[in-house]
Amino acid sequence: MQITGTFIDEISHDIPHQNWGREEWDRDFGYMKAVGIDTVIMIRSGYRRFITYPSAFLQKQYGCYAPPVDLVEMFLELADKHGLKFYFGLYDSGHYWDTGNLQDEIDANRFVIDEVWKQYGHFKSFGGWYLSMEISRKTKGATNAFRTLGQQCKDVSGGLPTFISPWIDGKKAVMAATSQLSKEDAVSLRQHEEEWSEIFDGLQGSVDAVAFQDGHIDYHELEDFFAINKKMADRFGLQCWTNAESFDRDMPIKFLPIKFEKLRLKLEAARKAGYDKAITFEFSHFMSPQSAYLQAGHLYNRYKEYLQSLR
Amino acid sequence: MQITGTFIDEISHDIPHQNWGREEWDRDFGYMKAVGIDTVIMIRSGYRRFITYPSAFLQKQYGCYAPPVDLVEMFLELADKHGLKFYFGLYDSGHYWDTGNLQDEIDANRFVIDEVWKQYGHFKSFGGWYLSMEISRKTKGATNAFRTLGQQCKDVSGGLPTFISPWIDGKKAVMAATSQLSKEDAVSLRQHEEEWSEIFDGLQGSVDAVAFQDGHIDYHELEDFFAINKKMADRFGLQCWTNAESFDRDMPIKFLPIKFEKLRLKLEAARKAGYDKAITFEFSHFMSPQSAYLQAGHLYNRYKEYLQSLR
Amino acid sequence: MQITGTFIDEISHDIPHQNWGREEWDRDFGYMKAVGIDTVIMIRSGYRRFITYPSAFLQKQYGCYAPPVDLVEMFLELADKHGLKFYFGLYDSGHYWDTGNLQDEIDANRFVIDEVWKQYGHFKSFGGWYLSMEISRKTKGATNAFRTLGQQCKDVSGGLPTFISPWIDGKKAVMAATSQLSKEDAVSLRQHEEEWSEIFDGLQGSVDAVAFQDGHIDYHELEDFFAINKKMADRFGLQCWTNAESFDRDMPIKFLPIKFEKLRLKLEAARKAGYDKAITFEFSHFMSPQSAYLQAGHLYNRYKEYLQSLR
Repeated sequence: MQITGTFIDEISHDIPHQNWGREEWDRDFGYMKAVGIDTVIMIRSGYRRFITYPSAFLQKQYGCYAPPVDLVEMFLELADKHGLKFYFGLYDSGHYWDTGNLQDEIDANRFVIDEVWKQYGHFKSFGGWYLSMEISRKTKGATNAFRTLGQQCKDVSGGLPTFISPWIDGKKAVMAATSQLSKEDAVSLRQHEEEWSEIFDGLQGSVDAVAFQDGHIDYHELEDFFAINKKMADRFGLQCWTNAESFDRDMPIKFLPIKFEKLRLKLEAARKAGYDKAITFEFSHFMSPQSAYLQAGHLYNRYKEYLQSLR
Repeated sequence: MQITGTFIDEISHDIPHQNWGREEWDRDFGYMKAVGIDTVIMIRSGYRRFITYPSAFLQKQYGCYAPPVDLVEMFLELADKHGLKFYFGLYDSGHYWDTGNLQDEIDANRFVIDEVWKQYGHFKSFGGWYLSMEISRKTKGATNAFRTLGQQCKDVSGGLPTFISPWIDGKKAVMAATSQLSKEDAVSLRQHEEEWSEIFDGLQGSVDAVAFQDGHIDYHELEDFFAINKKMADRFGLQCWTNAESFDRDMPIKFLPIKFEKLRLKLEAARKAGYDKAITFEFSHFMSPQSAYLQAGHLYNRYKEYLQSLR
Repeated sequence: MQITGTFIDEISHDIPHQNWGREEWDRDFGYMKAVGIDTVIMIRSGYRRFITYPSAFLQKQYGCYAPPVDLVEMFLELADKHGLKFYFGLYDSGHYWDTGNLQDEIDANRFVIDEVWKQYGHFKSFGGWYLSMEISRKTKGATNAFRTLGQQCKDVSGGLPTFISPWIDGKKAVMAATSQLSKEDAVSLRQHEEEWSEIFDGLQGSVDAVAFQDGHIDYHELEDFFAINKKMADRFGLQCWTNAESFDRDMPIKFLPIKFEKLRLKLEAARKAGYDKAITFEFSHFMSPQSAYLQAGHLYNRYKEYLQSLR
């Protein structure tokens, strides 16, 4: 199963920044292309006061800082140059995490979507939208909000595709800023299917693909969960992608590149389940030959050998 | 706002060692010089049993280990060579942290200051003293101790300048060896001003500059706190420096180089407040092109571009 | 005191993987050899479902994943090539950690030992066995199990040597996956001697060497603990090795390469106590010039200078 998409984690919650400039990004898009990646997904356009493009709206309304570089423009130009599709990730004001109220996210993004499409919609590589709030089964009440956001993205852009990347509430679903590695009260297969069927039912028509994060369950659980995900996606007319995490959740340093054997287990499970596409979180820190984590360059080499073995 | 000084964190509490020899330090002083750094500050001459120079006194009195290299001599020689000023950071026995009693630190450093000045005072680059114990508002009782130490440094060295680098008791003032990133009970602006006015009043004459660490408050709080710091410094005749932390306090890995955008926000806030000088903690791990953290080299490049944009 | 052995930490509990292929391992064995290492110890042949060689038994009986590479074969071939001795570390099913029952480890390894000796016993470099379960004083009840396993290794292989590498239950004996650095209830010298004498008594004849991990006590405690370890080893006819940890236990990032000064203190303590051999955990992450942690390459250089100074 080949990885054909990657997130770009500028505006990060938990991955230290590499401080790359245009030159490094240009080179990285080349490294991506060389292993078959055709899609880059900017994970979010902003989080609280940090934003990726000089949004007049967000600076005025949310007190956001003027960004030193227009990353959206840069990524789109580089995506054009390298022939990649670019997905735009919505803004996360952080208010939902503070108050439990999603209305604010809807209101903010109504403006963001319009603003962004007006400024950047003409780029050839602008290929879709990523509904960036990461949901899990506990966010069922949020289905309406996601449908609204997805619909808005489609309406403004002539129906460009949208996707979400939720997590499975498995044993490794713990906060990054704790020293814990796992928890006891993981979701069962049956609960997972019940709850996500309800969510997917509510999202029909406004979301085109679901890319479950693959790192919260144990490796021997992959097969069962992936089979259910595929079944549900088929039932509700969604494309079934896997978000193959290329960082290691099992280690005290949160987070460094994953051991290749683990990535391979996860990709193989997605292949067996008949998934439509694999994307990764994310190439530039965890798989790139120029990553500050040198393990990433070795992972790149191991992954290339794996691709060759598939031919 | 240009960074013109950096700590050197040999004898570290929380930053893993790079195991550099003289060759690497020589090269690093060159990298510093190239971006306008004129001052290096050895953060402490010792902590508990680990020391930076072969002090007969500390080995005998505190059971300190014989250091493999005389770092003080090496740094002074290299500072001479590169035309940098060297500040000497006092010894921290650790007893204060264990017992709450500062008398021991005063006693130990009385000897250290004499010993060091006798051995190294002749170096052209020996330019000042750093009162290395990091205080916050909770350490008000310690004002006398700091005055005594600062006075002693000045007396022995013909009045060489002294400075302190306290922290603001803000929301990010949490221990490095916990997984927490923030806390609830942060200090208010009013409390901050009241308590530090009292401390600065007690330090007059023995301390020449205060360099508040800039990483414990949120970015949108910088302007208000910096304005107060400058006002207080002016009132009590201190130079107002900023200690611009070049590591990222917002990430689970404690600590890797900061995102350039954040460093820029902090430097700009210091500039707007009319600060006298910017130093950083610290160049060699977090901003150096030869740092083991490759993000640091990219930060160096982004910072150089920023300097060029200021011209 | 020269380090002449190193663990190889493939199948790791807590050290992120470097994703090396055969080329990197070949080069690393060369780097080891160049500083006098004559022994490599594969720390464990498997942990739970991850294994180092395609064991039919473990895949069938324990649901282990088919490994992408036969690491045992590769390490033995490279050890042959570079003239190193290879020690094989036993399998750890993880069941003991879950249930407190060691019988399962004995049963599993009975098969593993036979299988491995049959498949790989002909390699010239196959030089011994490592009883991989890390025990401490709290595991006294396990003495029988270890005797059984050690005996089995010897019986099948014509008496090849075996060793263990327990930890001292000192102040730094805390879990890697917590943010803590130390604890209060450390073992006393007297308890340590009492309890380990009992354990060593039970292991006589089936274990040839004990290599206590040297990182759980403070540096000024090394001398006393090492003297007792040597005394006990002599009394019970064991070789006394030190497992010189080359990672730093005193830092919030768990774990990066150790400060050379600390490693030197530990090696010097082992030398003074008359230890027979020093091994390290472990060369490839923490001392290798090609480690992803660039501090390791500098440690390699400092260590080489130290070796030269001993001549």
